[in-house]
Amino acid sequence: MPPTPSGADVTRVEQWERRTEVPLLLLALAFLAAYAWPVLDPGLHPTLENGLQALSWAVWGAFLVDFGVRVSLAEQRGRYVLRHWYDVALVVLPMLRPLRLLRALAVARILGRTFAHNRAGRVTVYVIGATVATIGLGALAVLDAERADPHANITTFGDALWWAVTTVTTVGYGDFYPVSTGGRLIAVVLMLVGIALLGSITATIASWLVASAAEAEEEEMEQAVDESTAAVLAALDDLRRQVAALESRLDAGDPAAPD
Amino acid sequence: MPPTPSGADVTRVEQWERRTEVPLLLLALAFLAAYAWPVLDPGLHPTLENGLQALSWAVWGAFLVDFGVRVSLAEQRGRYVLRHWYDVALVVLPMLRPLRLLRALAVARILGRTFAHNRAGRVTVYVIGATVATIGLGALAVLDAERADPHANITTFGDALWWAVTTVTTVGYGDFYPVSTGGRLIAVVLMLVGIALLGSITATIASWLVASAAEAEEEEMEQAVDESTAAVLAALDDLRRQVAALESRLDAGDPAAPD
Amino acid sequence: MPPTPSGADVTRVEQWERRTEVPLLLLALAFLAAYAWPVLDPGLHPTLENGLQALSWAVWGAFLVDFGVRVSLAEQRGRYVLRHWYDVALVVLPMLRPLRLLRALAVARILGRTFAHNRAGRVTVYVIGATVATIGLGALAVLDAERADPHANITTFGDALWWAVTTVTTVGYGDFYPVSTGGRLIAVVLMLVGIALLGSITATIASWLVASAAEAEEEEMEQAVDESTAAVLAALDDLRRQVAALESRLDAGDPAAPD
Amino acid sequence: MPPTPSGADVTRVEQWERRTEVPLLLLALAFLAAYAWPVLDPGLHPTLENGLQALSWAVWGAFLVDFGVRVSLAEQRGRYVLRHWYDVALVVLPMLRPLRLLRALAVARILGRTFAHNRAGRVTVYVIGATVATIGLGALAVLDAERADPHANITTFGDALWWAVTTVTTVGYGDFYPVSTGGRLIAVVLMLVGIALLGSITATIASWLVASAAEAEEEEMEQAVDESTAAVLAALDDLRRQVAALESRLDAGDPAAPD
Repeated sequence: MPPTPSGADVTRVEQWERRTEVPLLLLALAFLAAYAWPVLDPGLHPTLENGLQALSWAVWGAFLVDFGVRVSLAEQRGRYVLRHWYDVALVVLPMLRPLRLLRALAVARILGRTFAHNRAGRVTVYVIGATVATIGLGALAVLDAERADPHANITTFGDALWWAVTTVTTVGYGDFYPVSTGGRLIAVVLMLVGIALLGSITATIASWLVASAAEAEEEEMEQAVDESTAAVLAALDDLRRQVAALESRLDAGDPAAPD
Repeated sequence: MPPTPSGADVTRVEQWERRTEVPLLLLALAFLAAYAWPVLDPGLHPTLENGLQALSWAVWGAFLVDFGVRVSLAEQRGRYVLRHWYDVALVVLPMLRPLRLLRALAVARILGRTFAHNRAGRVTVYVIGATVATIGLGALAVLDAERADPHANITTFGDALWWAVTTVTTVGYGDFYPVSTGGRLIAVVLMLVGIALLGSITATIASWLVASAAEAEEEEMEQAVDESTAAVLAALDDLRRQVAALESRLDAGDPAAPD
Repeated sequence: MPPTPSGADVTRVEQWERRTEVPLLLLALAFLAAYAWPVLDPGLHPTLENGLQALSWAVWGAFLVDFGVRVSLAEQRGRYVLRHWYDVALVVLPMLRPLRLLRALAVARILGRTFAHNRAGRVTVYVIGATVATIGLGALAVLDAERADPHANITTFGDALWWAVTTVTTVGYGDFYPVSTGGRLIAVVLMLVGIALLGSITATIASWLVASAAEAEEEEMEQAVDESTAAVLAALDDLRRQVAALESRLDAGDPAAPD
Repeated sequence: MPPTPSGADVTRVEQWERRTEVPLLLLALAFLAAYAWPVLDPGLHPTLENGLQALSWAVWGAFLVDFGVRVSLAEQRGRYVLRHWYDVALVVLPMLRPLRLLRALAVARILGRTFAHNRAGRVTVYVIGATVATIGLGALAVLDAERADPHANITTFGDALWWAVTTVTTVGYGDFYPVSTGGRLIAVVLMLVGIALLGSITATIASWLVASAAEAEEEEMEQAVDESTAAVLAALDDLRRQVAALESRLDAGDPAAPD
């Protein structure tokens, strides 16, 4: 069988996805910058703010075009859209203002893809990456959401970051807390990520402890099977020698000769 | 053997339960509406409020009648009541005002029944369903319980919902908290659901991580058994050929012939 | 073999422990009542309070005598004391005032013993029992410890109970919190019990999920062993028939006869 | 084979590490004392404070020299530095003031080494040791960091210790919380340790519950293998007797004799 030419065993969608990976990552970071700048520096010049707004919409457009190309390249389009509901959400959800930042999670998605061939550490990489990203993005988003509210107590990025950490770890001192509906929705996302974080850490430790015990057990079982095999093979060997003795007596033509 | 006629292998209680499923679900939702409306809109016209009160009692009556019919249809009545202690609680508990809402959890029960044949996702469905339901119902009930207390700080449904979320996730900022005994009892239920939620998520991740390791191990074990079997069968085959050679020599009538 | 006479296979210490179980339980409850009454009713008549104090010391004396008898009955006294460090703590620790209540946990110990033959539910019984007991005793002890402090915010048993629940579940709203050193030590115990509670619930769910998967796996493995055994036994049966055919030919005295 | 002379199978680095273990532990404790004293007693005489500062730097120098010697003794220096990144951090990080205390964790490292040959309890020892050490050091460090801030509410060591406990257990009442950036960084470390603590406790209980179930399962599996082996060996024994009977008939020289 001749070797298949390079690239023949990947679909056209996969080829496209590989080529656009780095550009899309850079676009996501540009989107993040365009979102974060006006939030962190409220006294921004209106011209610059409008420019960043335009950049933000341009990145959204690029993501839309990329997804359109991928769907058109896919062999089973309906199935492709269903399996990539996450990308659909990334493209459609930005309509809602505080959720727009979810698109920057594309970075996490690309990082995840990069580490995808290293099985063992994948859960850890995803959890740490998602937690750090969520805390940073959550602090930005809550600051943006709370700024409009006159009763807000989260008014600087430092406080927002601190609040995000106390929320993700479910400590919740209560020295800072969101008062607007948008801020509270972001808090719910942070709490869910925190619960997933705690669950993943616990589960990873538990599976590691169980695995070492299970390996010892498996070795014992394999030893039991090996011992069983050895006993049966020894008995068979005895029998074979018995039959061979019979045969050699026939060879000697003297059935009554002593053994 | 002729096929059993449809319905012959289900008991009369099960037939009744299937037929009343949808009507009971609608009644539970009506009860929820009758409970929620006056809580969410305190300035309700007394006539309407009395009407909703009547509706609420009518639903309770319907649940009572349904349970009575099921017990009378059951083959072992005492055992049926014991196994359906949950339904007994749904019918008897409403005497206590803030716990009346538990009856609306009948929705969760029916949803659970619907997904009962899909084993894998059942835990997830139950946990997510119970959490969402508990947050919604808990917010309603705490608002109702706190309204009577002059020192209450949970006074709007938005705040009640936000408080319920911070309680279930055990974050507990302390910007809102119940001050009445009824409200605190509802808080305890929310905390217990939150602990169950965190425990279930962690356990699901842990079992998923352990399962993939255990499968690899099982394959190794099965391979060990297969190799053992192959070695024994090969040794037996050798022996069989040895005996067959002996036999064929007897066939030839020449016991002393060379092999 | 004649049956061993009843009681001959239990040591003298065990006989003593069985006989004193119920009286000790009642004494522990009396101690709890003598502790709780003055805490819950601060305006108690001094005579009654002194009486309760005397009762409390009498119970402590009874526990001391019981432990002395058990040590003197034991075969290996040093080892018995080491293995029953918990009882040593129960007798010695009451010197420290807020820890005196630990003795009431003897109830949990006796309940534990009662359910000790029912393996499956033991962890659950212990955890629920210990949690309920810790919340109740913790609320009592914190009220007693905080009463002396002029800045205390936990001043009624209702508030103390509510505070204990929010602490065990690690929600910690911050509407109530201890300010005295004694109260804070009790809070630490409640937090540790809360972490143990959450850990046990999660672990129980996880082990239940893992166990059902492991059982399915074990069945597959047993089937693999059974199939291997069947294959080997079938091959052996073939061989046996082959040898039997050889034998029957020798019986017929016609080695060259067709098969 | 003659026994290898003592010390010949340990590398020169390991010899050095063993000899310097106790002196380094004492130096770490001296560092801790030199750090803790001025924090706990702010009105310290400047001369004494300068002396403690000098001691602190001397200990840092000793750790630096020790690490230098170990790297120069190592066979593969680059690899040694990479594998001992923790020691690198201990030597380099003290530049940042609130993190200087991490060096005192050398105690935990040495304790860990001591218990390293006792496999089962190692996780528990590490977790408890790290938690107690983190709470103590965290309370010291937060007090030091917050003292400079005029809005600080953590102003005594008792309050700092209490705050550290409520943070590690993720209860977070909010009666005390850090307001300076340094204090908040220390809080994040405490929260992470708390999550690791909760995760380890849960995982240990879970693995213990799973292990007892897995052992029962393994026994069943080993019994299945044993039964399979016994059945095969019994069949082989039958066959052997059959062949032996054949042989003894040949011995008797009478092939047609009855069995």
